[in-house]
Formats: sequence, C-alpha cells, structure tokens
Amino acid sequence: MNRELRNDAEKIIEGSIRAVLPDRAVIKALQNFRPGKGRTVLVAAGKAAWQMASAAVGAGIRIDDGIVITKYGHVKGELPGILCCEAGHPVPDEAGFHATEKALQLVRPLGEDDTVLFLLSGGASALFELPLIPGEELQAITKKLLASGADITEINTIRKRLSGVKGGRFAQAAHPARVYSILLSDVPGNRPDMIGSGPACPDPSTCRDACEIAERYLPDLAREVREHLTHETPKQLEHVDTVITGSVRELCAAAQNICRELSYEPVLLTDELCSEAREAGTMLACIAKTHAGRGRRVAFIAGGETVVHLTGNGKGGRNQELALSAAPELSGIPGVAVFSVGSDGTDGPTDAAGGYADGDTCGELAAKGIDIRKALSDHDSYHALQAVGGLIMTGPTGTNVNDLSVVLVGG
Amino acid sequence: MNRELRNDAEKIIEGSIRAVLPDRAVIKALQNFRPGKGRTVLVAAGKAAWQMASAAVGAGIRIDDGIVITKYGHVKGELPGILCCEAGHPVPDEAGFHATEKALQLVRPLGEDDTVLFLLSGGASALFELPLIPGEELQAITKKLLASGADITEINTIRKRLSGVKGGRFAQAAHPARVYSILLSDVPGNRPDMIGSGPACPDPSTCRDACEIAERYLPDLAREVREHLTHETPKQLEHVDTVITGSVRELCAAAQNICRELSYEPVLLTDELCSEAREAGTMLACIAKTHAGRGRRVAFIAGGETVVHLTGNGKGGRNQELALSAAPELSGIPGVAVFSVGSDGTDGPTDAAGGYADGDTCGELAAKGIDIRKALSDHDSYHALQAVGGLIMTGPTGTNVNDLSVVLVGG
Repeated sequence: MNRELRNDAEKIIEGSIRAVLPDRAVIKALQNFRPGKGRTVLVAAGKAAWQMASAAVGAGIRIDDGIVITKYGHVKGELPGILCCEAGHPVPDEAGFHATEKALQLVRPLGEDDTVLFLLSGGASALFELPLIPGEELQAITKKLLASGADITEINTIRKRLSGVKGGRFAQAAHPARVYSILLSDVPGNRPDMIGSGPACPDPSTCRDACEIAERYLPDLAREVREHLTHETPKQLEHVDTVITGSVRELCAAAQNICRELSYEPVLLTDELCSEAREAGTMLACIAKTHAGRGRRVAFIAGGETVVHLTGNGKGGRNQELALSAAPELSGIPGVAVFSVGSDGTDGPTDAAGGYADGDTCGELAAKGIDIRKALSDHDSYHALQAVGGLIMTGPTGTNVNDLSVVLVGG
Repeated sequence: MNRELRNDAEKIIEGSIRAVLPDRAVIKALQNFRPGKGRTVLVAAGKAAWQMASAAVGAGIRIDDGIVITKYGHVKGELPGILCCEAGHPVPDEAGFHATEKALQLVRPLGEDDTVLFLLSGGASALFELPLIPGEELQAITKKLLASGADITEINTIRKRLSGVKGGRFAQAAHPARVYSILLSDVPGNRPDMIGSGPACPDPSTCRDACEIAERYLPDLAREVREHLTHETPKQLEHVDTVITGSVRELCAAAQNICRELSYEPVLLTDELCSEAREAGTMLACIAKTHAGRGRRVAFIAGGETVVHLTGNGKGGRNQELALSAAPELSGIPGVAVFSVGSDGTDGPTDAAGGYADGDTCGELAAKGIDIRKALSDHDSYHALQAVGGLIMTGPTGTNVNDLSVVLVGG
C-alpha cells in the first residue's frame, strides 16, 4: 500500500466530513424558528438525528418532549427530555417501527398552538417507518427493490404508500400543530420529498407511478399490498415550513479545499454520480491511469450515490465495491489511488465507511490468495479490502450527505 | 436538439480525426525503411490499410507486388501494382480468408534479400485471418467472446491460436525475408502484440492463458478446437522491425486543441477508457449535469474503448450506446451534450460513426413514441438515435485509433 496516498485519503475524508457536520447548519436554520405559544415537540429521525437534535438542544431551544430515532450505534449520549432510540438500517426493524409509533403518539394530540420541530436526515426511509403491512413483508419488498437495482426515487415511491408516516403522512398526523422541518439532504438534487421519503412533505409521486414501478420490479406483489399503492398521499401541507440544509455539493467543495491544502489540483467531476458502483470504480481507475506519472499532483472528485445490483452473498457496500473495482485497472501503477466513502460512516450493512485501493492492492490480494474477480462477482468487497488494509473506518460520523469518491494522482 | 452544440461536436470530430490520419505517420515511419536488394512486397491489413498503403505509394517506395485487405467500403481507389481487397468486419468472412491466403502466397516464396512492408491497423484481427478451423466455427467463437464481454486481450489470445497468421505466424511464414512492420495503434497502451492480434509480433500470451480464457467463456468448445489452443506461437522474431504510430492519446490531444479553439476549456479525463458503454454514458452525463449552468464552457474528453455486453437483437455500436445512455440523465438540461465516435468512422455493424445526445434527446424520442428504456435494453441505439438526428455519420475515415467521447458544457 502507498502509505502517503493512504494518509492523504484519511485527511481528505476526515476534513470533508467535519466540514459537513450538521451542527452549524441546524443552528443557522433555527434562526428563523418561531415556536407557537403551546408545547414544542422535537422529532429527529435519520442517521444524523442525534447530532441534529444535540445541535438544537445546544442552541437553547426549549423542548417539552421529544424523540430521536437513529441507526444502531449512532446515539452518542443523553439529551435532556428527549428519548433516544436506535433501530435497523438499511433494513427497517421492529425497534424502528416501535419508535416511529411513539413519535406519532407525541404529535397526534397536539393542537394548533403547538409546534413540532422535525429534524430529518438520510437513512430515515428505513429508520422512521410504521408499515401498513407486516414488517417482514415490507422488509422483503425493500430488499427486493434494492437488489433489483431500483433507484432511490422508485424505492421511495413504493415505500410512501406502504407507510403510516412517509409521503407527508407524518405531518398529516401532526396537524393542526405547526411543523418546522429541517432537512439534511443526502439526495442528489435535494428534492425534499425524497429525503427520508418525505414524512413532512407533499408527495409529488402518484398512485399511478407506484403501480408502474411495482409492475417493473415486483411482479408477484400480494393483492393486499397492491391495494395500498392505490391510496393517495397528501398533495398539500400548509402547516409545514421546510428548510433544506447540507448537500453533497458542500461535501465535494470541502474535499476540493483539502486537496488543495495537500497540494493536489482538485478537479470536480460531478456531485451527482449515479452509475453502477463497479463501473464508476473502473472509470475512475481509467482516469487515474491516464494521469499517473505525468508529474502533476491532481485529485478528481465525484460526489453522489452509486448503485449495486446485488448477486451473491458477499459482504460490502457501494463505496467498498467502487474502490475494489478500481484495483485491477490500477494494478502495478505507482502513485495513484481511488477511494470512496459514505459521509455517514457506514457503507452498506458493514462497520466500514468505504474502501481504498491503489497500485499495490491487486498484488497484495494475490499474495493473500484472494481472487479479486471472485470477490467482485460475489459482491464481497468487505473481506477482500479487510485483508489488505483497504477498509476505511470512521465510525458513525453524525452526518449523512451522500458519498465521496476520489482519484488521487501523487505526481 | 441544441444546434450549436451539435455543430461544435461535428467540428471536434472532424478536426480530431483529420489530425490522426495515418498519412503523415506512415511517411515519417518510412524514413527508416531500408528495403533489401531483392523484391519488396507490400501487405496492408486493417481498417486503415488502404490509406496507409496509399501513403507508402505516395512516398515513392518501390513496390514489386502487394495486397491491401480492408473493410467493405474502405477501398478508395486503385493503387498501382497492389491488389485491393475488401472483407467482413467485425465478423470475419470468406473474402477475408481468401485475401489473407493470397498475402501468405505472396510472402512464403520470398528469400533473405527480399522485404515485406507490412502495414497494420485496427480491425485486422477480423480482416487479416486464415482460420485453422472452419470459418463458421471461428465466427461463432468470435461472436460468443464479443457477446460474453471478454476483453480484446482475451479475445485475441484465443484467436491467435486458431489462426494461420496471428500471434507472429504471418512473420514466421515470411521468413527468411525481412519484415518491416508499421503499426497504427487502436489499442490502449499500444501493445504491438494486440494490434490486429500481432501477425508480425512475438506472442507473449501462452497456451495456458488461452486454455484459462476458453474455460471461462467457452465451456462447450469442441475438442479439435481446444487442441489448437495447445500449439504455441512464436516467442522470438528476429527478422522483424516494428514501428508503432498513431494512438488514442494523439486523438485526445487533437480534440483538446479543437475544444480550445471553440472556447471550451478542455479537461482530459482519460485516454484509456474501458468501462461498460452504458455506464460510461451515465457517468459522462452526471459530469455534464454538475457543470451545466455554471457559466463555464468546458469539455471533458475521454478516449479509449468501452465494451458492450450484448443482449437483444438491436442495431448499434458502443459509441451510439454510450451517447444514448447519457440522454436520460441529460434530459431537460440546457446547454450540455455528450457524444462519442469511433475514429474509424464505423461503430459496430452500422454505417454510423457514433452518436450524439443532449438535453432535448429524451423529449424528442418520447415525441416520436420511442421508449428509450426499451431501446437501451435491446441495445437498439442506432434506430433511436436515427429517429432524432443523433447519429454521427462520417463514412470510413481512413484511420483507426480507437474512440473519442466528449462532454460539452456550453456555459
């Protein structure tokens, strides 16, 4: 492994994520927050829920009652007067359903003088959920959609209609209380209805869209489930104010700044990456190869969210798969690296945030007797990268603004 | 369609290809050509064969006998004393086998005072071929390898061993005459043994490699065919001199220059592109989206060769598929375009050189009742692009140095 490039990768990751922690963004958004005369209830959901709630408490907002619903391992301490719950992600579980029911119980009795401070971040699609069908059935549908390569817009269009909170239904339950909603975006283009499947946002998707998507990816859907897809979601929510903050664009901008500090010339490729993880890895490696050995220190930066079409039973995530996919093309080339990391610190169902590969990775894998072709076709990037020190471990970061992928050319 | 971007695309394509025509390169390479006292026989094979032979004739080289073997439609006139043959590409045919047998008949009787001027360009893997197995069987194997996504290195490792001319066997047949070989490269990295499967080049691939590749992609290979894979190719050819000229790097450099003249800031992404055509298209479109509307005229340039995993019975080529794949992501975004073109002027088995898409393409397809998802999944990019004026037509260009893909952001 190229130690210098690996160290630079760590610095870029650490600094970029620090720059997009939600604290400052939440405090700024709260400057316009005017609670009503009644009670104020805080509901925070998503991978950055604890961090966002903590920022609101730190900003001196009076909270009469509240709940945080975040991923396992993401609660970092007690918050006064606020119940902190952890639940399953990316696959929702009973703990999440139970916590979401509690959140509904908090907001349902509120009157028009009361206020809901709703702090939402990526991951809430799974974490903030009260399914209208049995939990296992919803889990099976979500898994099938993820595995068949449906994009996040399509997945959410289905989930909104099988849920008691998504697609504006949470805000509907809070009526007539006013809802002040702060969204930390992890969705390219920052469409508020797509963040956490829009619990407090009018839903632009229609029953017709949902049925078409079901036809494409879920041909054998049960009739009871199909029935739910025909119940329309709210199209207007006049008691809700929404502020969107945080974005993958800021993450990329922060990465560019740190690259510059490390004397790499930064080149922003895109902040809307959406290709197949494996192919993005190959293409970033092709970019690395071309610029290797030309005496120029340069960093190509891509933000966004790749997709993985699951086959095999391996362990990994889209960022680890992207990095491992870059390794064969980089093989033997000195001074270049490709890494990719989820800003939330958890990539897929693993404890790694992402992966790193350079010109030595293939050789080191071979030396350990690991067949990279097989690891890739089994989507088992975690174990392959683990064997050669290629995992990036950050722990839960407290934010979630999508992924960062970088090509480093050391000159 | 954005007329201005489309016009710029045409200028970039026309100018870049003109800059890599082989004439100057052949004339330069011939400065070191010292024919022997005996006869000089010219053998030119590949998509640029006629153009290269014409340049040699124009340079005043005395040719006693000769043959040109190129793709149908690529002979542009008579050449004195040289037989000009056309044959099938990408699938080899009897015309090619017959012409290749003629080339062998020309060089087999030569003595050590005689000289073979061998002009080789991309496409020769199919065009310059004398199979050791029945032609249809070789065609079936080649088709199967192309369709299963084997890369060009793997395909050539197999074809060398099923051929009377590849993998150094043509030069072996010309011995003891000296062979002066000028290669116009269409292979990323310019490995001479990969250009046209190296008829005059020692073969670094081994029988073991060939057997492994056969196991992976051709599990049901006949035993007679498998037997040929165990016959080794020449590893040394001391009577051959080789000059490599032309490269996709020059094509990209020329494109950068023309972009600059058209006031786009050129950014070279890679000259070794090797991803799946569809995913490369998506990723280039993501790059376009991010830079659209930021007030900066910029062109991202990628050279190389993408791959297509064939399914469906559509008509198209990798460049057309790349462009069409970009269209959904570009949809509705003004001032951006993605185009891709084969420098030889023929993309796959079509009369188009490549394809062009911009923010209007999706809407125009929809207006014509064409389902872009279906066109993409059927690999039917030709008909879809044809319907909306998105085909790039150059005719045979006389060169072949791989593909050029460009993102234009009009500022």
